[in-house]
Amino acid sequence: MSTNKYAIGIDFGTESGRAVLVGMKSGEEIATAVYSYENSVIDKKLPVDGAPVRLEPEWALQDPQDYIRTFQQTVPAVLSQAGVDPEDVIGIGIDFTACTMMPVKNDGTPLCALPDYRRHPHAWVKLWKHHAAQPEADIINATARRLGESWLDRYGGKISSEWFFAKALQILNEAPEIYAAADRLIEAADWVVWQLTGVETRNSCTAGYKAMWSKKEGYPSDAFFRELDPRMEKIIDKKMSRAICPIGDKAGELTSRAAAWTGLREGTAVAVANVDAHVSVPAATVTEPGRMVMIMGTSICHMLLGEEERRVEGMCGVVEDGIIPGLFGFEAGQSGVGDIFAWFVNNGIPAAYEREAQERAMDIHQLLEEKAALQKPGQHGLLALDWWNGNRSVLVDVDLSGLLIGATLGTKAEDIYRALIEATAYGTRVIIEAFEKNGVGVEELVACGGLPEKNKLLMQIYADVTGRNIKISAAKQTPALGSAMFGAVAAGSRAGGYGTIFEAARRMARLKDEVYQPIPANRKIYDRLFAEYVRLHDYFGRGGNNVMKTLKRIRDEVS
Amino acid sequence: MSTNKYAIGIDFGTESGRAVLVGMKSGEEIATAVYSYENSVIDKKLPVDGAPVRLEPEWALQDPQDYIRTFQQTVPAVLSQAGVDPEDVIGIGIDFTACTMMPVKNDGTPLCALPDYRRHPHAWVKLWKHHAAQPEADIINATARRLGESWLDRYGGKISSEWFFAKALQILNEAPEIYAAADRLIEAADWVVWQLTGVETRNSCTAGYKAMWSKKEGYPSDAFFRELDPRMEKIIDKKMSRAICPIGDKAGELTSRAAAWTGLREGTAVAVANVDAHVSVPAATVTEPGRMVMIMGTSICHMLLGEEERRVEGMCGVVEDGIIPGLFGFEAGQSGVGDIFAWFVNNGIPAAYEREAQERAMDIHQLLEEKAALQKPGQHGLLALDWWNGNRSVLVDVDLSGLLIGATLGTKAEDIYRALIEATAYGTRVIIEAFEKNGVGVEELVACGGLPEKNKLLMQIYADVTGRNIKISAAKQTPALGSAMFGAVAAGSRAGGYGTIFEAARRMARLKDEVYQPIPANRKIYDRLFAEYVRLHDYFGRGGNNVMKTLKRIRDEVS
Repeated sequence: MSTNKYAIGIDFGTESGRAVLVGMKSGEEIATAVYSYENSVIDKKLPVDGAPVRLEPEWALQDPQDYIRTFQQTVPAVLSQAGVDPEDVIGIGIDFTACTMMPVKNDGTPLCALPDYRRHPHAWVKLWKHHAAQPEADIINATARRLGESWLDRYGGKISSEWFFAKALQILNEAPEIYAAADRLIEAADWVVWQLTGVETRNSCTAGYKAMWSKKEGYPSDAFFRELDPRMEKIIDKKMSRAICPIGDKAGELTSRAAAWTGLREGTAVAVANVDAHVSVPAATVTEPGRMVMIMGTSICHMLLGEEERRVEGMCGVVEDGIIPGLFGFEAGQSGVGDIFAWFVNNGIPAAYEREAQERAMDIHQLLEEKAALQKPGQHGLLALDWWNGNRSVLVDVDLSGLLIGATLGTKAEDIYRALIEATAYGTRVIIEAFEKNGVGVEELVACGGLPEKNKLLMQIYADVTGRNIKISAAKQTPALGSAMFGAVAAGSRAGGYGTIFEAARRMARLKDEVYQPIPANRKIYDRLFAEYVRLHDYFGRGGNNVMKTLKRIRDEVS
Repeated sequence: MSTNKYAIGIDFGTESGRAVLVGMKSGEEIATAVYSYENSVIDKKLPVDGAPVRLEPEWALQDPQDYIRTFQQTVPAVLSQAGVDPEDVIGIGIDFTACTMMPVKNDGTPLCALPDYRRHPHAWVKLWKHHAAQPEADIINATARRLGESWLDRYGGKISSEWFFAKALQILNEAPEIYAAADRLIEAADWVVWQLTGVETRNSCTAGYKAMWSKKEGYPSDAFFRELDPRMEKIIDKKMSRAICPIGDKAGELTSRAAAWTGLREGTAVAVANVDAHVSVPAATVTEPGRMVMIMGTSICHMLLGEEERRVEGMCGVVEDGIIPGLFGFEAGQSGVGDIFAWFVNNGIPAAYEREAQERAMDIHQLLEEKAALQKPGQHGLLALDWWNGNRSVLVDVDLSGLLIGATLGTKAEDIYRALIEATAYGTRVIIEAFEKNGVGVEELVACGGLPEKNKLLMQIYADVTGRNIKISAAKQTPALGSAMFGAVAAGSRAGGYGTIFEAARRMARLKDEVYQPIPANRKIYDRLFAEYVRLHDYFGRGGNNVMKTLKRIRDEVS
């Protein structure tokens, strides 16, 4: 094959969608285009004409038309930027936030696009961070515990209100007419692939991590769903599908309609849908056990592969074929990381620091990093529990809250900033140790996402605290690169792509040269501080003192 | 007696001395003058000619000449401001920081005023906040425990490095030649009275609270001092005095030299010296058991009277005649209060708040108070331990540190500000409960000092948390008024003053009309939050988890 071949990865985020055109030979990111969703996150009122339709607190919806506009805007833009012949684009892959789900008709038409349902909130896409289905999640968890459902353990003993059946049950409870009108309930990830290919597929990643499906056991039983609500008994067969496509499969080919949207060739191979965090794993070069990928941003997702299914305390899920075909994919996470630093910068930085940052034309994070980097570990005398946004792994408890201890009249903003960074690193170490304790080894860390680019101090602290080398993905847009790689696999080697994701990863994924290595002297101090962190973690997180919950309960009572 | 009579109270503070001219009839503060000490707090190098003499960390000295200048500057100033005939000023009282002590010759000449010793740091006045005698305090505490000294219990089981014999032992250890050259070791409070009267007296307040003297048992035994150091065996008889004058006595009369300094009449009555916090008690109208006086500023002193000696956990001291003659005076305290709020305002307030305060021409404390006052108790979901500056009562542990719990991504600066105020109120409640548990009743609180004037929210929170009415001293300068009252008692009723401090208090001390009363609904919430505070207090303060000490130890190791 003499000409260069390309794949396009499209990453559907919370506020925008992003396409990246990637070269087949070495995975170089040739062109990028971003579309900011017209209706973004819908959390106040529906974007409809006429009398306003207001949403309850904790709701978060999206407009599926924004996803179509993402195709229409970004793909032609990258083609034109790169000056690439559409004939040379051999495959497309997409990744999405999850669980982001929607009710549609048999032909794929979203209910919210139909005049009859357009003014009904439950007809719209429920975004991953729609948190109004907590009562339904509570019911699901209680029912599963009561019935001794075997799948519960695969999800650290508790499912989240963000997940598929909590959202589906909320529709049924609050809007049975919408539930009835929905021929299909589907992940937005699978829906956009359907829009590209004309074929409805269901991917193993969202099915496994968000809808309690497993390759061996399938979905929870009809009996379980009947127990939740008799009307829900046949949800799988009637509104979903038992046919689950493993990650790495080809979903179909571009229809003429989708070819017209994108400017690509009809018949271009389209990969089975994927999830942003999960698709980042091979894009960060990881296709084997032993190296944990951390997608580091407002929160951290910890992704790890294993040969066997293991139960690990507080993990988000373990799914066979969930990340890489043929392996078990483990997911764990910290619910607040960059979010906490942003909170601190917005709420806790004195004006003098802001002035200094302005005068020196620095970002305030940079200034704090500079000041904090002058300290030795332990020098600020502080310790924090990184639970400003609750705790996902390993405690799975949204009612936990942040703690700072050790403050004196000499404590400075940079001390607290550094303590918060360290707290999130201790949180990651707790997760690593939970995996190792259950026989899933973690020898090395590979980081991607926004934080590793921005904060070298943070990366060194993570290396020192975890005692592991950390390498950094070379991709600017790791999820989009991962999607493009799966697009290349969907196209296959005969078309100029790759036969397997393993081969694609070897050729298209790269790490930066820099490696953050633990500094032995720092490790020693951090080992001692981590022991104190664990003691506080267990005391406040495992029932020794439930003051965090009491404070929230009192807050809710008086508010 | 037809003409008005007056007394002058002189309050020697940390940075300045202040004289207030007070009318005898109703205690009105007629004129005030302040002298800022020329050499202020000496903590870097001695104010001497020639090669610099630098001080070690933790040192804090003063220049006794600044006290003389205070007399020379402030007394003539108040006389002239008020246009009062010096003949009508019938008495003078002084109060001082304590323990602020100094080595002098038999004639009262400070060693630091003599050329031979002027360049020696140990020859100068050791200010109350000289903290370099901690090793000596440790030795004194260990020795007292070993010998089972009965006086230890009167001081909550531990004496402070700020106190008299710790400072004296430091002189002996580090500068035996200064110790030998010091004919007398004396509180600066007593020394300034000596300078006014020509008579060396020792007051029962500093002797009792700072030098372990008691009316029944006197000083610790010679045997105890011998155990500390054989050269110290006879310290009381050789360098101090066993004759202790109760508070309320007349020390002597103004000498011609002091009359020339001040413009007052030679022979004017001078009261026995007093301490700033203690002298505030009658000035806040309290001369009987049951009402606790809180002197609220950077820290809080809690002063309480009782009919009997009681041992109360963690109190600073109990001294018969220590505050009011004939009663036992109890002192307890919180080592950080206004200090913590100042720390927060300097280190934790975002620029947007500073801009808003500027635009609205408000103090930042006012702005935070306004925002925090909009909340109900418990609404911010936070709880703090107010140990930014360690804990004085009841734990007596300088190595404890601050804790904040309950933070979320929605936590605002005003939430933390309010939580810090509440934490200091919980700290006061712990002290009140310790007194009550040991049979010393606290029915009502009387506040004086800087904070009650500035922050109404704080006062209401203290009322709600403690469940007690709080009244406020009407005096602008409560300690100086108290000193003037003792001046009036020293003059006596025949000269136009008063026969007793009880009578002086009835006539000269007043409270404001406003009373902060507990709001029942708030009390209920605060009772629940206080229970959580106590649990954290005991866990981190009584050995359940020594993480605060561990963090300080690691900090000291790496620094």
